[in-house]
Amino acid sequence: MAIARAEDKLDLYAAVARQLRADAIRCSTAAGSGHPTSSLSAADLMAVLLVGHLRYDWAQPRNAANDHLIFSKGHASPLNYALFRAAGAITEQELMSFRKLGSRLEGHPTPVLPWVDVATGSLGQGLPIAVGVALAGKRVLAAPYHVWTLTGDSELAEGSIWEGLDHAGHERLANFTAIFDVNRLGQRGPTELEWNLDAYAARVRAFGCEPIVVDGHDLAALDAALGRARAADGPTVIGAKTVKGKGVSFLEDQEGWHGKALDAEQARRALAEIGDVPSRTFPTLSPDPWQPPRRPAPRRPEWKTYREPLATRKAYGEALAALGAARADVVVLDGEVSNSTHAEDFKQAAADRFFEMYIAEQQMVAAAVGMQVVGLIPFASSFAAFLTRAFDFIRMAAISRANLRLCGSHAGVSIGEDGPSQMALEDLAMMRAVHGSTVFYPCDANQTARLVGLMAEREGISYLRTTREKTPILYTDRLAEFRVGGSRIVRGGQPDDAVAVIAAGITVHEAIKAADEVKGTSKVRVIDAYSVKPIDSAALVDAVRATGGHLCVVEDHWVEGGLGDAVLAALAEAGVLHDVVRFVHLAVRNMPGSGKPAELLDAAGISAPYIVKAVREMSTGG
Amino acid sequence: MAIARAEDKLDLYAAVARQLRADAIRCSTAAGSGHPTSSLSAADLMAVLLVGHLRYDWAQPRNAANDHLIFSKGHASPLNYALFRAAGAITEQELMSFRKLGSRLEGHPTPVLPWVDVATGSLGQGLPIAVGVALAGKRVLAAPYHVWTLTGDSELAEGSIWEGLDHAGHERLANFTAIFDVNRLGQRGPTELEWNLDAYAARVRAFGCEPIVVDGHDLAALDAALGRARAADGPTVIGAKTVKGKGVSFLEDQEGWHGKALDAEQARRALAEIGDVPSRTFPTLSPDPWQPPRRPAPRRPEWKTYREPLATRKAYGEALAALGAARADVVVLDGEVSNSTHAEDFKQAAADRFFEMYIAEQQMVAAAVGMQVVGLIPFASSFAAFLTRAFDFIRMAAISRANLRLCGSHAGVSIGEDGPSQMALEDLAMMRAVHGSTVFYPCDANQTARLVGLMAEREGISYLRTTREKTPILYTDRLAEFRVGGSRIVRGGQPDDAVAVIAAGITVHEAIKAADEVKGTSKVRVIDAYSVKPIDSAALVDAVRATGGHLCVVEDHWVEGGLGDAVLAALAEAGVLHDVVRFVHLAVRNMPGSGKPAELLDAAGISAPYIVKAVREMSTGG
Repeated sequence: MAIARAEDKLDLYAAVARQLRADAIRCSTAAGSGHPTSSLSAADLMAVLLVGHLRYDWAQPRNAANDHLIFSKGHASPLNYALFRAAGAITEQELMSFRKLGSRLEGHPTPVLPWVDVATGSLGQGLPIAVGVALAGKRVLAAPYHVWTLTGDSELAEGSIWEGLDHAGHERLANFTAIFDVNRLGQRGPTELEWNLDAYAARVRAFGCEPIVVDGHDLAALDAALGRARAADGPTVIGAKTVKGKGVSFLEDQEGWHGKALDAEQARRALAEIGDVPSRTFPTLSPDPWQPPRRPAPRRPEWKTYREPLATRKAYGEALAALGAARADVVVLDGEVSNSTHAEDFKQAAADRFFEMYIAEQQMVAAAVGMQVVGLIPFASSFAAFLTRAFDFIRMAAISRANLRLCGSHAGVSIGEDGPSQMALEDLAMMRAVHGSTVFYPCDANQTARLVGLMAEREGISYLRTTREKTPILYTDRLAEFRVGGSRIVRGGQPDDAVAVIAAGITVHEAIKAADEVKGTSKVRVIDAYSVKPIDSAALVDAVRATGGHLCVVEDHWVEGGLGDAVLAALAEAGVLHDVVRFVHLAVRNMPGSGKPAELLDAAGISAPYIVKAVREMSTGG
Repeated sequence: MAIARAEDKLDLYAAVARQLRADAIRCSTAAGSGHPTSSLSAADLMAVLLVGHLRYDWAQPRNAANDHLIFSKGHASPLNYALFRAAGAITEQELMSFRKLGSRLEGHPTPVLPWVDVATGSLGQGLPIAVGVALAGKRVLAAPYHVWTLTGDSELAEGSIWEGLDHAGHERLANFTAIFDVNRLGQRGPTELEWNLDAYAARVRAFGCEPIVVDGHDLAALDAALGRARAADGPTVIGAKTVKGKGVSFLEDQEGWHGKALDAEQARRALAEIGDVPSRTFPTLSPDPWQPPRRPAPRRPEWKTYREPLATRKAYGEALAALGAARADVVVLDGEVSNSTHAEDFKQAAADRFFEMYIAEQQMVAAAVGMQVVGLIPFASSFAAFLTRAFDFIRMAAISRANLRLCGSHAGVSIGEDGPSQMALEDLAMMRAVHGSTVFYPCDANQTARLVGLMAEREGISYLRTTREKTPILYTDRLAEFRVGGSRIVRGGQPDDAVAVIAAGITVHEAIKAADEVKGTSKVRVIDAYSVKPIDSAALVDAVRATGGHLCVVEDHWVEGGLGDAVLAALAEAGVLHDVVRFVHLAVRNMPGSGKPAELLDAAGISAPYIVKAVREMSTGG
């Protein structure tokens, strides 16, 4: 569609903006909640974008050539949904289901709607995710799409915004445009910088992006700014000075209206001002036909077979390399520690699909989420302790229904001298509490490779916990049997075992030492619970039965939220608590310091001698 | 001490720098690990600071007039400890205990050493915490101290650094100076900006701080820069261009040396270059005598007594106000949602002790940690879901042995229409897995006030989970009995109760409805487990005994890591699993959407009808 004359175009923009405003008010008033004033400030921005610049095939949201539009200010969902209505993607009837039980139009956008890439609503996340979508478009897909993201101004206080712009600048992402809706008012009052557009522009420029400052209600100026943004040879940020509540006199630039729907009478007055025309579908621009480059068919990864002790973190790196050679859709991101996590090994297989995210774990996870939006298979890694930095992003990724693989290295006290700041002791608790997550904790290099293979195939968010120190090889056969929800008995396994020790990762080796030491006197079953979530409930129940309910869980993690809690929850769910006579939980209970790995395992009471003690007490006293 | 002549002063600085370098190498070589090269780049900076500018009474680390020095680049601990040695705070012998089991000189600094304010080692945290110390010094204490923080350049990629500088700029913290040690090399290779000091300066300026760019090895220039920084009328950042490994020819600006100790022969060569003089104590500057202003003696807070339904979040705000009126050392921080968390109520009692941190949860928690360094009692609040943004800071705060109070509002699906992005469903899992934490989840306004009072007195990290919706008043008597590790039986309580329902927060009210509904047929004990950690183990054991092991836990949280896991862990620890015949766990298992609070409690299967069903099944089938 070409718009012949400038004034026609501006009339069209004005008509769209009018409808967006009216629909944002209508749907939020019907819902009785929502954020109409945050929608009104950006209505002109989105009107001009929707019909003048966004190239999107609304009938085919999976068209790989489509532009991407991410509402980083997710609370402006009335505007986002009004935009879908104006594009003809949803009906007026569906628009009015906003925020009602069962509606796809939730309080904040989620990918339950096919035109929504990711869930937003935790501020400062949409922009860094958009950077990931743009990065994939530029560096992996060579795609024609442009990535647009709309932010509020309150969320510009989040450091993650600046991590995102830093990366957009560093990677020279010409296909990336952020639109700052600077309406001066946050939830509880003025923002830090209010309407100081110069200050925002200076920050944007300093972070390597081109600022384009504009009056956010001047339709012609917006049209020019968006055109300039798309044509720029680097990343752009449109700093739009706007008025919260714009278009409704009693809402404009008023405090106390954030997150409040208008009542029926207020809505009537507002619509009278705006022009309460029936809502309709407007013509929009389609993307040029484009197909993503054909990738070679995925091959079966050629895992190495290890015979000598190797750290599982190293096995992770080598498994990534094997995966990268076998599949062209695997991408790897790391937070400036790839020589520690060993993600750097992937570079040998596919340097062009390795992304250095520097020390910015939030941006790393956000970029990974962005890359899976366009069908890639991202693995992102850092020290497991530092993944806590990105917990809010991981939590939101679950709401985004993202397929995301994370690896955290340097788990537990067994890292040794570096001390507690570098020890992940809460990562299992964190990752178990992510909706639909899969949590693996391997104890051997061959197992690690197979679990990495499972992660590549797995939907949802999966997590691999790796160990700093070298660990012996336990597994050289039945490697194909490792599975989501599996476990492996590595000592004992007879129906008359006296005690079952349930371990994972580094503690499997301690448990084996303990079992071997007491071999003459106690029959110990050692279970490698490498799949912490879902956990192998059947194996646990069998262990309870076999041992007459004598269990010891040993883990290199705080006592809360890790393997011990997972085992108890599974036993409870299986209804066999009553059959548990003794349950000993060896876990980290005191703040560790520095020392050698073996010293720290001892100090925490999770080394072989403590398992021996527990087993002996149970064998005699049980 | 006055240094008479400029060249004498420079000679002194050079001697100190020589010793810092030599000691950093000596101690890391003795340890066999550590970060000598990251220490060498900043040795000149720290030498000039230590003997020329830092005002610190090394014999009295709690002297309130002392400057503060926070190594945001905690991995430069060899330099930090060498500095303590040069100041005479530790002996050479202790220096050589670096990284050994039991030593106070851990791999990364922690407050086990009295001259260390906070644990660092997760990058990007020391600076924002320093902002908190400076903020307290300026706005609460009117203290004479200056706050210095040394950062690496890799960590400048963390968004939290820019949150920190943004706040330092916004608050015009003239008592704050960050020193960027720009040595160009990160762990695995060059940093994003390498030696582009202009780029850093532009960013610093754009964020409201004054950049002072300097050659980090020019002692006279450093002396001038540090002097200028202290005298400035706003926050300053010294951008120091340095060389990693400076002073040792084979280490200078070399990749591959990050985090590696020199072996004995390398150390011998390095010390020969540096000048292997015996280490000694240097004179340093003392702070001027100063006493913090006398505060009125704390009074007993006057809690309101509520009779009408009130949201616990509102009760939190009003309790803060009561606390603020009673105690002058309580400070409150909020992340731009104080009209939702109701922290804003505190402003009425003590507006000067309320800190608006805007939407920057990491900075909010960091500032709170900084404020407790100087003896204040901080409460920090946001939506509980958004506290996940600061998990790494909370984790590190535990290693810092910080006394920190957090409040997360809008817990669970019961928030209603806003949808899952705003629902905390993992906060209990997160906060339970914080070392030494206390986790409260009140169900009633009067209880909330008393728990806030307990938090003010409590050491370590405590957390209060509040609810968006109004809840009925349950408690008007025995309010002084609420305690850490307590619980309250709100229905039943006889030795012949048939089933115990364990709930907290919003689900207590659902459990009561259920108990009242089945009253005629089943005797139900309802336990309000408001202290989720530590949990009231004795009450749980008693409930097992009374009911013959028929328990139902109901919680508005993911199934993992919350109340259910806490109850099971307590039962296991108490050795009574064997007595549990039935254990039903009602928790959130599917991704919620939007809807009315009651609809969402129903959809999640945690409302009264589901409790009734569970109780009935247990009463008949048990």
